[in-house]
Amino acid sequence: MELYTYFRSSAAYRVRIACALKGVSPTPHFVHLLNHGGEQKQAEYSKINPNQTVPTLVTEEGAITQSLAILEYLEERYPNPPLLPVHSHDRAFVRSIALTIACDIHPINNLRVLQYLTGTLGIAEDAKNTWYQHWVMHGLNALESQLANHPASGDFCHGDQPTFADICLIPQLYNARRFKVDLSAYPTLTRIESNCLAISAFIEASPEKQPDYQ
Amino acid sequence: MELYTYFRSSAAYRVRIACALKGVSPTPHFVHLLNHGGEQKQAEYSKINPNQTVPTLVTEEGAITQSLAILEYLEERYPNPPLLPVHSHDRAFVRSIALTIACDIHPINNLRVLQYLTGTLGIAEDAKNTWYQHWVMHGLNALESQLANHPASGDFCHGDQPTFADICLIPQLYNARRFKVDLSAYPTLTRIESNCLAISAFIEASPEKQPDYQ
Repeated sequence: MELYTYFRSSAAYRVRIACALKGVSPTPHFVHLLNHGGEQKQAEYSKINPNQTVPTLVTEEGAITQSLAILEYLEERYPNPPLLPVHSHDRAFVRSIALTIACDIHPINNLRVLQYLTGTLGIAEDAKNTWYQHWVMHGLNALESQLANHPASGDFCHGDQPTFADICLIPQLYNARRFKVDLSAYPTLTRIESNCLAISAFIEASPEKQPDYQ
Repeated sequence: MELYTYFRSSAAYRVRIACALKGVSPTPHFVHLLNHGGEQKQAEYSKINPNQTVPTLVTEEGAITQSLAILEYLEERYPNPPLLPVHSHDRAFVRSIALTIACDIHPINNLRVLQYLTGTLGIAEDAKNTWYQHWVMHGLNALESQLANHPASGDFCHGDQPTFADICLIPQLYNARRFKVDLSAYPTLTRIESNCLAISAFIEASPEKQPDYQ
Protein backbone atom coordinates (compact mmCIF):
# COMPACT_ATOMS: atom_id res chain seq x y z
CA MET A 1 0.00 0.00 0.00
CA GLU A 2 1.00 3.63 -0.44
CA LEU A 3 0.24 6.55 1.85
CA TYR A 4 0.19 10.17 0.76
CA THR A 5 1.07 12.16 3.87
CA TYR A 6 2.33 15.48 5.21
CA PHE A 7 4.22 15.50 8.50
CA ARG A 8 2.11 18.25 10.08
CA SER A 9 -1.34 17.13 8.89
CA SER A 10 -3.43 15.95 11.85
CA ALA A 11 -5.46 13.71 9.58
CA ALA A 12 -2.36 12.03 8.11
CA TYR A 13 -0.93 11.70 11.65
CA ARG A 14 -4.05 9.70 12.64
CA VAL A 15 -3.47 7.23 9.82
CA ARG A 16 0.23 6.96 10.61
CA ILE A 17 -0.63 6.01 14.21
CA ALA A 18 -3.19 3.41 13.09
CA CYS A 19 -0.73 1.88 10.60
CA ALA A 20 1.98 1.69 13.26
CA LEU A 21 -0.40 0.07 15.78
CA LYS A 22 -1.51 -2.47 13.16
CA GLY A 23 2.06 -3.14 12.04
CA VAL A 24 1.28 -2.03 8.49
CA SER A 25 3.91 -0.02 6.60
CA PRO A 26 2.59 1.62 3.44
CA THR A 27 5.19 3.31 1.24
CA PRO A 28 5.04 7.03 2.01
CA HIS A 29 4.66 9.80 -0.57
CA PHE A 30 5.10 13.31 0.74
CA VAL A 31 2.66 16.05 -0.21
CA HIS A 32 3.82 19.42 1.09
CA LEU A 33 0.74 21.51 1.83
CA LEU A 34 2.61 24.84 1.57
CA ASN A 35 5.41 24.38 -1.00
CA HIS A 36 4.72 25.18 -4.67
CA GLY A 37 1.41 26.82 -3.70
CA GLY A 38 0.32 23.59 -2.04
CA GLU A 39 1.36 20.32 -3.68
CA GLN A 40 -2.08 18.85 -2.86
CA LYS A 41 -3.54 21.16 -5.53
CA GLN A 42 -1.34 19.84 -8.34
CA ALA A 43 -3.07 17.98 -11.15
CA GLU A 44 -1.34 14.67 -10.49
CA TYR A 45 -2.41 14.51 -6.85
CA SER A 46 -5.90 15.87 -7.60
CA LYS A 47 -6.47 12.83 -9.80
CA ILE A 48 -5.79 10.58 -6.82
CA ASN A 49 -7.66 12.77 -4.34
CA PRO A 50 -10.06 15.26 -6.01
CA ASN A 51 -10.70 16.85 -2.61
CA GLN A 52 -7.01 17.87 -2.50
CA THR A 53 -6.50 16.78 1.09
CA VAL A 54 -4.14 14.39 2.83
CA PRO A 55 -4.03 11.55 3.68
CA THR A 56 -4.81 9.19 0.81
CA LEU A 57 -4.19 5.46 1.13
CA VAL A 58 -3.73 3.62 -2.14
CA THR A 59 -4.41 -0.10 -2.07
CA GLU A 60 -4.33 -2.64 -4.88
CA GLU A 61 -8.03 -1.82 -5.37
CA GLY A 62 -7.62 1.95 -5.62
CA ALA A 63 -7.42 5.13 -3.55
CA ILE A 64 -9.15 5.71 -0.22
CA THR A 65 -9.53 9.27 1.00
CA GLN A 66 -10.60 10.60 4.43
CA SER A 67 -8.64 9.55 7.49
CA LEU A 68 -11.58 7.95 9.33
CA ALA A 69 -12.59 5.93 6.26
CA ILE A 70 -8.98 4.71 6.11
CA LEU A 71 -9.06 3.80 9.83
CA GLU A 72 -12.27 1.77 9.36
CA TYR A 73 -10.72 0.06 6.31
CA LEU A 74 -7.57 -0.85 8.25
CA GLU A 75 -9.73 -2.15 11.12
CA GLU A 76 -11.68 -4.41 8.73
CA ARG A 77 -8.65 -5.65 6.81
CA TYR A 78 -6.16 -5.93 9.70
CA PRO A 79 -8.33 -6.72 12.75
CA ASN A 80 -5.42 -7.21 15.17
CA PRO A 81 -4.89 -5.40 17.41
CA PRO A 82 -8.48 -4.09 17.40
CA LEU A 83 -8.84 -0.32 17.50
CA LEU A 84 -12.56 -0.42 18.25
CA PRO A 85 -14.22 -2.16 21.20
CA VAL A 86 -16.48 -5.18 20.66
CA HIS A 87 -19.85 -3.93 21.91
CA SER A 88 -21.87 -1.64 19.60
CA HIS A 89 -22.58 1.02 22.20
CA ASP A 90 -18.90 1.19 23.14
CA ARG A 91 -17.95 1.38 19.48
CA ALA A 92 -20.38 4.27 19.08
CA PHE A 93 -18.78 6.06 22.04
CA VAL A 94 -15.29 5.66 20.57
CA ARG A 95 -16.43 6.78 17.13
CA SER A 96 -18.24 9.79 18.61
CA ILE A 97 -15.04 10.99 20.30
CA ALA A 98 -13.10 10.52 17.06
CA LEU A 99 -15.81 12.36 15.10
CA THR A 100 -16.05 15.25 17.55
CA ILE A 101 -12.39 15.86 16.76
CA ALA A 102 -12.59 15.08 13.04
CA CYS A 103 -15.82 17.00 12.35
CA ASP A 104 -16.20 19.64 15.05
CA ILE A 105 -12.67 20.74 15.93
CA HIS A 106 -10.17 20.03 13.19
CA PRO A 107 -11.97 21.16 9.98
CA ILE A 108 -12.61 24.67 11.29
CA ASN A 109 -8.95 25.08 12.17
CA ASN A 110 -6.99 23.42 9.45
CA LEU A 111 -4.56 25.18 7.17
CA ARG A 112 -6.92 25.97 4.29
CA VAL A 113 -9.52 27.57 6.56
CA LEU A 114 -6.92 29.65 8.43
CA GLN A 115 -5.48 30.72 5.07
CA TYR A 116 -8.95 31.85 3.90
CA LEU A 117 -9.48 33.83 7.13
CA THR A 118 -6.21 35.77 6.91
CA GLY A 119 -6.02 35.87 3.10
CA THR A 120 -9.46 36.29 1.52
CA LEU A 121 -11.17 37.82 4.57
CA GLY A 122 -8.17 39.84 5.73
CA ILE A 123 -8.59 38.78 9.37
CA ALA A 124 -5.69 39.85 11.61
CA GLU A 125 -3.30 37.28 13.07
CA ASP A 126 -4.63 37.89 16.59
CA ALA A 127 -8.25 37.32 15.59
CA LYS A 128 -7.19 34.19 13.70
CA ASN A 129 -5.55 32.81 16.83
CA THR A 130 -8.66 33.68 18.88
CA TRP A 131 -10.76 31.81 16.31
CA TYR A 132 -8.48 28.78 16.62
CA GLN A 133 -8.56 28.79 20.40
CA HIS A 134 -12.33 29.33 20.52
CA TRP A 135 -13.17 26.23 18.50
CA VAL A 136 -10.46 24.03 19.95
CA MET A 137 -11.37 24.88 23.52
CA HIS A 138 -15.10 24.42 22.87
CA GLY A 139 -14.37 20.95 21.54
CA LEU A 140 -11.81 20.00 24.18
CA ASN A 141 -14.18 21.14 26.94
CA ALA A 142 -16.79 18.72 25.60
CA LEU A 143 -14.26 15.89 25.30
CA GLU A 144 -12.89 16.45 28.81
CA SER A 145 -16.42 16.28 30.20
CA GLN A 146 -17.33 13.18 28.19
CA LEU A 147 -14.14 11.31 29.01
CA ALA A 148 -13.95 12.30 32.69
CA ASN A 149 -17.49 10.95 33.14
CA HIS A 150 -17.14 7.88 30.94
CA PRO A 151 -17.92 4.74 32.94
CA ALA A 152 -15.40 2.67 30.94
CA SER A 153 -12.57 5.16 31.17
CA GLY A 154 -9.15 3.66 31.78
CA ASP A 155 -5.64 4.39 30.62
CA PHE A 156 -7.07 5.48 27.28
CA CYS A 157 -10.27 7.16 26.04
CA HIS A 158 -12.08 3.85 26.33
CA GLY A 159 -10.63 1.14 28.53
CA ASP A 160 -7.01 0.08 28.55
CA GLN A 161 -6.25 -0.23 24.84
CA PRO A 162 -5.87 2.59 22.33
CA THR A 163 -8.78 3.11 19.92
CA PHE A 164 -9.81 5.46 17.11
CA ALA A 165 -10.56 8.02 19.83
CA ASP A 166 -6.95 8.16 21.06
CA ILE A 167 -5.69 8.10 17.48
CA CYS A 168 -7.64 11.31 16.81
CA LEU A 169 -6.96 12.91 20.19
CA ILE A 170 -3.17 12.87 20.08
CA PRO A 171 -2.77 14.83 16.79
CA GLN A 172 -5.39 17.34 17.98
CA LEU A 173 -3.54 17.98 21.24
CA TYR A 174 -0.26 18.25 19.32
CA ASN A 175 -1.89 20.88 17.12
CA ALA A 176 -3.38 22.73 20.11
CA ARG A 177 0.07 23.02 21.69
CA ARG A 178 1.41 24.50 18.45
CA PHE A 179 -1.21 27.22 18.75
CA LYS A 180 -0.37 27.71 22.44
CA VAL A 181 -3.72 26.53 23.80
CA ASP A 182 -3.53 26.19 27.61
CA LEU A 183 -4.21 22.51 28.26
CA SER A 184 -4.21 22.74 32.07
CA ALA A 185 -8.02 22.59 32.14
CA TYR A 186 -7.94 19.14 30.53
CA PRO A 187 -6.40 16.73 33.06
CA THR A 188 -8.19 13.70 31.63
CA LEU A 189 -7.09 14.45 28.06
CA THR A 190 -3.47 15.10 29.03
CA ARG A 191 -3.38 11.97 31.22
CA ILE A 192 -4.52 9.90 28.23
CA GLU A 193 -1.99 11.73 26.06
CA SER A 194 0.85 10.74 28.40
CA ASN A 195 -0.24 7.10 28.22
CA CYS A 196 -0.37 7.20 24.42
CA LEU A 197 3.00 8.88 24.09
CA ALA A 198 4.56 5.99 26.01
CA ILE A 199 3.68 3.65 23.11
CA SER A 200 6.18 3.31 20.29
CA ALA A 201 3.50 3.42 17.55
CA PHE A 202 2.40 6.89 18.68
CA ILE A 203 6.02 8.07 18.87
CA GLU A 204 6.96 6.71 15.42
CA ALA A 205 3.93 8.42 13.86
CA SER A 206 4.68 11.88 15.29
CA PRO A 207 5.52 14.78 12.95
CA GLU A 208 9.13 15.00 14.22
CA LYS A 209 9.81 11.40 13.21
CA GLN A 210 8.70 11.81 9.59
CA PRO A 211 11.21 11.98 6.74
CA ASP A 212 9.49 15.16 5.44
CA TYR A 213 9.68 16.92 8.84
CA GLN A 214 11.28 20.35 8.65
CA MET B 1 -34.89 5.10 21.68
CA GLU B 2 -35.06 8.89 21.72
CA LEU B 3 -33.68 11.31 19.14
CA TYR B 4 -32.78 14.93 19.85
CA THR B 5 -33.24 16.72 16.56
CA TYR B 6 -33.74 20.09 14.87
CA PHE B 7 -35.61 20.21 11.58
CA ARG B 8 -32.97 22.25 9.76
CA SER B 9 -29.83 20.49 11.08
CA SER B 10 -28.10 18.59 8.28
CA ALA B 11 -26.61 16.17 10.79
CA ALA B 12 -29.99 15.39 12.39
CA TYR B 13 -31.49 15.05 8.89
CA ARG B 14 -28.91 12.30 8.14
CA VAL B 15 -29.97 10.32 11.20
CA ARG B 16 -33.67 10.81 10.39
CA ILE B 17 -33.09 9.32 6.91
CA ALA B 18 -31.17 6.34 8.34
CA CYS B 19 -33.88 5.66 10.94
CA ALA B 20 -36.60 5.83 8.28
CA LEU B 21 -34.67 3.46 5.97
CA LYS B 22 -34.12 1.03 8.86
CA GLY B 23 -37.74 1.28 9.99
CA VAL B 24 -36.67 2.54 13.41
CA SER B 25 -38.78 5.27 15.06
CA PRO B 26 -37.07 6.90 18.05
CA THR B 27 -39.22 9.35 20.04
CA PRO B 28 -38.23 12.85 18.88
CA HIS B 29 -37.23 15.70 21.16
CA PHE B 30 -36.88 19.07 19.49
CA VAL B 31 -33.87 21.27 20.20
CA HIS B 32 -34.26 24.67 18.55
CA LEU B 33 -30.79 25.93 17.62
CA LEU B 34 -31.87 29.60 17.54
CA ASN B 35 -34.67 30.05 20.10
CA HIS B 36 -33.77 31.04 23.68
CA GLY B 37 -30.20 31.80 22.60
CA GLY B 38 -29.87 28.25 21.27
CA GLU B 39 -31.59 25.48 23.23
CA GLN B 40 -28.59 23.20 22.62
CA LYS B 41 -26.60 25.39 25.05
CA GLN B 42 -29.01 24.89 27.96
CA ALA B 43 -27.71 22.98 30.97
CA GLU B 44 -30.17 20.09 30.63
CA TYR B 45 -29.19 19.33 27.03
CA SER B 46 -25.48 19.93 27.67
CA LYS B 47 -25.58 17.08 30.19
CA ILE B 48 -26.79 14.75 27.44
CA ASN B 49 -24.50 16.20 24.77
CA PRO B 50 -21.57 18.25 26.20
CA ASN B 51 -20.65 19.30 22.67
CA GLN B 52 -24.02 21.09 22.40
CA THR B 53 -24.79 19.80 18.95
CA VAL B 54 -27.66 17.83 17.43
CA PRO B 55 -28.42 15.03 16.88
CA THR B 56 -28.13 12.85 19.98
CA LEU B 57 -29.58 9.34 20.03
CA VAL B 58 -30.41 7.99 23.47
CA THR B 59 -30.59 4.21 23.78
CA GLU B 60 -31.19 2.07 26.85
CA GLU B 61 -27.39 2.10 27.30
CA GLY B 62 -26.96 5.86 27.15
CA ALA B 63 -26.46 8.76 24.76
CA ILE B 64 -24.69 8.60 21.40
CA THR B 65 -23.53 11.85 19.83
CA GLN B 66 -22.22 12.54 16.30
CA SER B 67 -24.41 11.64 13.35
CA LEU B 68 -21.92 9.25 11.71
CA ALA B 69 -21.36 7.37 14.98
CA ILE B 70 -25.14 7.02 15.21
CA LEU B 71 -25.31 5.74 11.62
CA GLU B 72 -22.63 3.11 12.33
CA TYR B 73 -24.50 2.10 15.51
CA LEU B 74 -27.78 1.72 13.64
CA GLU B 75 -26.00 -0.31 10.95
CA GLU B 76 -24.59 -2.70 13.57
CA ARG B 77 -27.80 -3.04 15.58
CA TYR B 78 -30.31 -3.03 12.70
CA PRO B 79 -28.42 -4.58 9.79
CA ASN B 80 -31.38 -4.65 7.38
CA PRO B 81 -31.53 -3.00 4.96
CA PRO B 82 -27.75 -2.54 4.88
CA LEU B 83 -26.55 1.03 4.39
CA LEU B 84 -22.96 0.02 3.70
CA PRO B 85 -21.76 -2.35 0.95
CA VAL B 86 -20.23 -5.74 1.84
CA HIS B 87 -16.68 -5.41 0.53
CA SER B 88 -14.18 -3.40 2.60
CA HIS B 89 -12.91 -1.25 -0.25
CA ASP B 90 -16.46 -0.37 -1.25
CA ARG B 91 -17.30 0.41 2.36
CA ALA B 92 -14.29 2.70 2.49
CA PHE B 93 -15.48 4.50 -0.66
CA VAL B 94 -18.95 5.04 0.80
CA ARG B 95 -17.55 6.24 4.13
CA SER B 96 -15.13 8.58 2.37
CA ILE B 97 -17.99 10.30 0.52
CA ALA B 98 -19.95 10.61 3.77
CA LEU B 99 -16.88 11.99 5.56
CA THR B 100 -16.02 14.48 2.83
CA ILE B 101 -19.45 15.99 3.51
CA ALA B 102 -19.39 15.55 7.29
CA CYS B 103 -15.79 16.75 7.82
CA ASP B 104 -14.86 18.95 4.88
CA ILE B 105 -18.07 20.73 3.84
CA HIS B 106 -20.63 20.88 6.62
CA PRO B 107 -18.60 21.90 9.71
CA ILE B 108 -17.20 25.02 8.05
CA ASN B 109 -20.68 26.16 7.11
CA ASN B 110 -22.94 25.27 9.96
CA LEU B 111 -24.90 27.77 12.01
CA ARG B 112 -22.37 28.28 14.81
CA VAL B 113 -19.50 29.01 12.42
CA LEU B 114 -21.57 31.42 10.31
CA GLN B 115 -22.71 33.15 13.52
CA TYR B 116 -19.07 33.57 14.61
CA LEU B 117 -18.13 35.03 11.21
CA THR B 118 -20.88 37.67 11.20
CA GLY B 119 -20.99 38.20 14.97
CA THR B 120 -17.53 38.00 16.54
CA LEU B 121 -15.55 38.77 13.37
CA GLY B 122 -18.04 41.30 11.96
CA ILE B 123 -17.91 39.79 8.46
CA ALA B 124 -20.51 41.27 6.08
CA GLU B 125 -23.44 39.16 4.87
CA ASP B 126 -22.04 39.08 1.32
CA ALA B 127 -18.63 37.81 2.44
CA LYS B 128 -20.35 35.21 4.62
CA ASN B 129 -22.31 33.94 1.62
CA THR B 130 -19.12 33.87 -0.47
CA TRP B 131 -17.45 31.84 2.32
CA TYR B 132 -20.36 29.39 2.29
CA GLN B 133 -20.32 29.00 -1.47
CA HIS B 134 -16.52 28.66 -1.61
CA TRP B 135 -16.38 25.68 0.74
CA VAL B 136 -19.53 24.00 -0.52
CA MET B 137 -18.49 24.26 -4.15
CA HIS B 138 -14.96 23.02 -3.41
CA GLY B 139 -16.45 19.97 -1.72
CA LEU B 140 -19.17 19.35 -4.30
CA ASN B 141 -16.63 19.65 -7.13
CA ALA B 142 -14.63 16.84 -5.52
CA LEU B 143 -17.72 14.70 -4.96
CA GLU B 144 -18.96 15.21 -8.52
CA SER B 145 -15.58 14.10 -9.85
CA GLN B 146 -15.36 11.09 -7.52
CA LEU B 147 -18.90 9.92 -8.19
CA ALA B 148 -18.91 10.54 -11.94
CA ASN B 149 -15.77 8.38 -12.22
CA HIS B 150 -16.78 5.72 -9.69
CA PRO B 151 -16.74 2.30 -11.38
CA ALA B 152 -19.63 1.06 -9.20
CA SER B 153 -21.84 4.10 -9.71
CA GLY B 154 -25.51 3.35 -10.22
CA ASP B 155 -28.77 4.96 -9.18
CA PHE B 156 -27.08 6.04 -5.94
CA CYS B 157 -23.58 7.07 -4.85
CA HIS B 158 -22.55 3.42 -4.79
CA GLY B 159 -24.60 0.90 -6.70
CA ASP B 160 -28.37 0.70 -6.66
CA GLN B 161 -29.14 0.93 -2.95
CA PRO B 162 -28.84 4.01 -0.75
CA THR B 163 -25.86 4.10 1.62
CA PHE B 164 -24.30 6.44 4.20
CA ALA B 165 -23.03 8.48 1.23
CA ASP B 166 -26.52 9.30 -0.05
CA ILE B 167 -27.71 9.88 3.51
CA CYS B 168 -25.10 12.63 3.87
CA LEU B 169 -25.44 13.98 0.33
CA ILE B 170 -29.15 14.81 0.41
CA PRO B 171 -29.05 17.12 3.48
CA GLN B 172 -25.94 18.85 2.06
CA LEU B 173 -27.65 19.54 -1.26
CA TYR B 174 -30.76 20.75 0.58
CA ASN B 175 -28.56 23.15 2.52
CA ALA B 176 -26.72 24.29 -0.62
CA ARG B 177 -30.04 25.20 -2.26
CA ARG B 178 -30.99 27.28 0.79
CA PHE B 179 -27.80 29.27 0.24
CA LYS B 180 -28.56 29.57 -3.49
CA VAL B 181 -25.58 27.53 -4.69
CA ASP B 182 -25.87 26.86 -8.44
CA LEU B 183 -26.05 23.07 -8.71
CA SER B 184 -26.04 22.89 -12.51
CA ALA B 185 -22.35 21.89 -12.52
CA TYR B 186 -23.19 18.73 -10.56
CA PRO B 187 -25.27 16.49 -12.85
CA THR B 188 -24.19 13.29 -11.09
CA LEU B 189 -25.06 14.63 -7.65
CA THR B 190 -28.44 15.97 -8.72
CA ARG B 191 -29.28 12.74 -10.58
CA ILE B 192 -28.57 10.79 -7.38
CA GLU B 193 -30.60 13.35 -5.43
CA SER B 194 -33.63 12.78 -7.69
CA ASN B 195 -33.39 9.04 -7.13
CA CYS B 196 -33.19 9.49 -3.36
CA LEU B 197 -36.09 11.89 -3.24
CA ALA B 198 -38.29 9.26 -4.90
CA ILE B 199 -37.92 7.10 -1.76
CA SER B 200 -40.40 7.62 1.07
CA ALA B 201 -37.73 7.41 3.82
CA PHE B 202 -35.90 10.40 2.34
CA ILE B 203 -39.16 12.34 1.98
CA GLU B 204 -40.34 11.60 5.54
CA ALA B 205 -36.98 12.73 6.96
CA SER B 206 -36.95 16.10 5.18
CA PRO B 207 -37.09 19.33 7.20
CA GLU B 208 -40.57 20.24 5.88
CA LYS B 209 -42.05 17.02 7.23
CA GLN B 210 -40.82 17.52 10.79
CA PRO B 211 -43.19 18.54 13.60
CA ASP B 212 -40.80 21.36 14.58
CA TYR B 213 -40.62 22.78 11.02
CA GLN B 214 -41.39 26.46 10.84
